[in-house]
Amino acid sequence: MNFKKISSKDNSLIKLVSSLQTSAKARRENGMFVLEGLRVCDDANICGIMFDKLILTESFYSKNTEVCEKFAKNSSEVYLLDDKLFKKISDTTSPQGIIAICKTDEIKQKEFDKAGKYIALENLSDPSNLGAISRTAEALGISGIILSDNSCDPLSPKVLRASMGTILRLPLYISENIMDFIKQNNLVSYSCVVDRNAEKITDVKFEKGSVVLIGNEANGLNEQTVDESDFAVTIPMNGVAESLNASVAAAIAMWEMMR
Amino acid sequence: MNFKKISSKDNSLIKLVSSLQTSAKARRENGMFVLEGLRVCDDANICGIMFDKLILTESFYSKNTEVCEKFAKNSSEVYLLDDKLFKKISDTTSPQGIIAICKTDEIKQKEFDKAGKYIALENLSDPSNLGAISRTAEALGISGIILSDNSCDPLSPKVLRASMGTILRLPLYISENIMDFIKQNNLVSYSCVVDRNAEKITDVKFEKGSVVLIGNEANGLNEQTVDESDFAVTIPMNGVAESLNASVAAAIAMWEMMR
Repeated sequence: MNFKKISSKDNSLIKLVSSLQTSAKARRENGMFVLEGLRVCDDANICGIMFDKLILTESFYSKNTEVCEKFAKNSSEVYLLDDKLFKKISDTTSPQGIIAICKTDEIKQKEFDKAGKYIALENLSDPSNLGAISRTAEALGISGIILSDNSCDPLSPKVLRASMGTILRLPLYISENIMDFIKQNNLVSYSCVVDRNAEKITDVKFEKGSVVLIGNEANGLNEQTVDESDFAVTIPMNGVAESLNASVAAAIAMWEMMR
Repeated sequence: MNFKKISSKDNSLIKLVSSLQTSAKARRENGMFVLEGLRVCDDANICGIMFDKLILTESFYSKNTEVCEKFAKNSSEVYLLDDKLFKKISDTTSPQGIIAICKTDEIKQKEFDKAGKYIALENLSDPSNLGAISRTAEALGISGIILSDNSCDPLSPKVLRASMGTILRLPLYISENIMDFIKQNNLVSYSCVVDRNAEKITDVKFEKGSVVLIGNEANGLNEQTVDESDFAVTIPMNGVAESLNASVAAAIAMWEMMR
């Protein structure tokens, strides 16, 4: 394999990777994101996502030569780093020793299936929740996620990790105004709210071309969004807690849609 | 209020709190656990849990004098720390300035309701999952959690935080062998497995006195546990992902039990 060796922490690649690991702005401005760890790199590779840069430690390469060679064929450049320097660009405390840098436009926008069933997320702030929702959505066969652009960055390392790579495969539609997007695609929309007077989600018959909207962890959905949606639905709760975690509410909503 | 002031990091209280924050062994050996933050301290106070030690920063006390005075009445001792020292014993990066130390036996064991519906967790390792499951269980009105004693510590700061304090209120039964416990209480048991041939959870009519068992995040339930349970059930999946996150699987199982 044709390696480039890097040994200085002042190298521009090191600086680039560090910024892509920590900053949504850097990811946006560079049009790039980071995959860290064998599992997610493999997931991306299976999806046909090209690696712009593949970065390995010598020890990872010597232990996983075969898979590294496979990845290298789909990488524009391959770099070798010593463990100490790799630790500087890793997002984890015990790095495996493999990072891939990808161009955002490698994630192909999938055509929108107007007969699908969707989950829409408005201003979702917690990367763990977005990751968990993506994982559940894929497992339950949801058609895709509609995400407001003021939500957390779906290509952050935390989301990628929590989603087990599913965020790279699942159709994802990011929109400044998710209600506009939903209306343009003629979906029947159900705002999920905490309100004992709203229709119970168990009473809804979800037809083809529908979407459930889930709001921000602390504040729920915007009032205007609820007003503009076709129906307000609620997850009946018997207990004393005020509300469910956003990823659990989304899981129950998706479960009921697909049930 | 009668404060004790602490100004040295070598103080035995500082060492105790640090160990209780980080070590399940220390919590077990001391029979104590830590509550950090106003919200969870308030939850515990409402549950009638006495504080053995209440530890405040001066700035927190001056901003929240009324609630601190209320807590102090239910605290054996009250300590005042400067911000720098408090940061050393805090589990968070931006500490609020309030920590309570409680004795484990302050959490009253609730009598077991043999007609209840339960979730049992075997070797659950992730504190975030246990916290999320506890929160969902309370919201959906589950009777309690049966937890194998090789699971993560339910009184760790992470579980307390993720559970939004619900772990202090929800009946929790810790057992070395959860199947023995389940049999002793004559519950009908359903092992939740990833197996297309198992009965679909949507086809089960959960009667009074039943329990769904959820296994370890990576390995699922022990084979012996599945064999010894009355039924094996599965959450039907349409998608390509191998499995759901443990807290999502538990949420869907509890939802179906209570539906």
